[in-house]
Amino acid sequence: MKVRHAYDVPTDIVREPGAKQVTIRRLIDTPDGADRFLMSLFELAPDGQTPPHYHDWEHEIFVISGSLHVDLPAEGKQIPLRQGDVVFIPRGEQHGLATGPGESARLLLVAPAERPPVRSVFLSEEPYEFDTAVAEDADR
Amino acid sequence: MKVRHAYDVPTDIVREPGAKQVTIRRLIDTPDGADRFLMSLFELAPDGQTPPHYHDWEHEIFVISGSLHVDLPAEGKQIPLRQGDVVFIPRGEQHGLATGPGESARLLLVAPAERPPVRSVFLSEEPYEFDTAVAEDADR
Repeated sequence: MKVRHAYDVPTDIVREPGAKQVTIRRLIDTPDGADRFLMSLFELAPDGQTPPHYHDWEHEIFVISGSLHVDLPAEGKQIPLRQGDVVFIPRGEQHGLATGPGESARLLLVAPAERPPVRSVFLSEEPYEFDTAVAEDADR
Repeated sequence: MKVRHAYDVPTDIVREPGAKQVTIRRLIDTPDGADRFLMSLFELAPDGQTPPHYHDWEHEIFVISGSLHVDLPAEGKQIPLRQGDVVFIPRGEQHGLATGPGESARLLLVAPAERPPVRSVFLSEEPYEFDTAVAEDADR
């Protein structure tokens, strides 16, 4: 058995096209013996977003704290999320998670460990963004 | 995509040998389209416990609130857990989760949807316990 505190796990900047002010902590990963599904903690600072994209695997999400919204680009919809909300995103569905200027959020995301040999298809041509101030805050 | 609030999902009493004062909410389940891994929320009232057992599938756990401990019967060990702790329990490892008299806890548990055709092996001969007062609290 492995036990650790979530905030003792190092943060990594999410560096995919269109990502903004977002970090990931890989809470339970392949080296822990997890060979079927992995648990990660994402933190979005104000005006943050995970990369809008789709891929051939599903996500299961639990909002730990804060508020944000899920973007569904194919449907032109935004759905607000708050602490305690649960989201299932099926394989192939375009999605992104984003915070407004006055918002921040922490969420758990579970995804398969073994992923089909396909690329994520990113919906943004923009480089990722990550401000130094966000990094300093994340290292607290 | 499916979105719901965790506390809008109905509770069910855990009715396995040795379970005490514990409920489950099936946050993301097979009917949602989840065919590889499922997310559930367990709530342990004071003096509660999930059934001590082992089985041929793994658990990934995140403690949302409260405090409790994980029992490892094969090693005779108890490891305290608090909010924000993350636990990986590999396949085959004996485990149980329990609260003391002054404790309660809420935790997320992720387990595979497709489980090998083997039984859980329960380590208790006792019937499950569940007090009415706990049910009334869970229905708040």
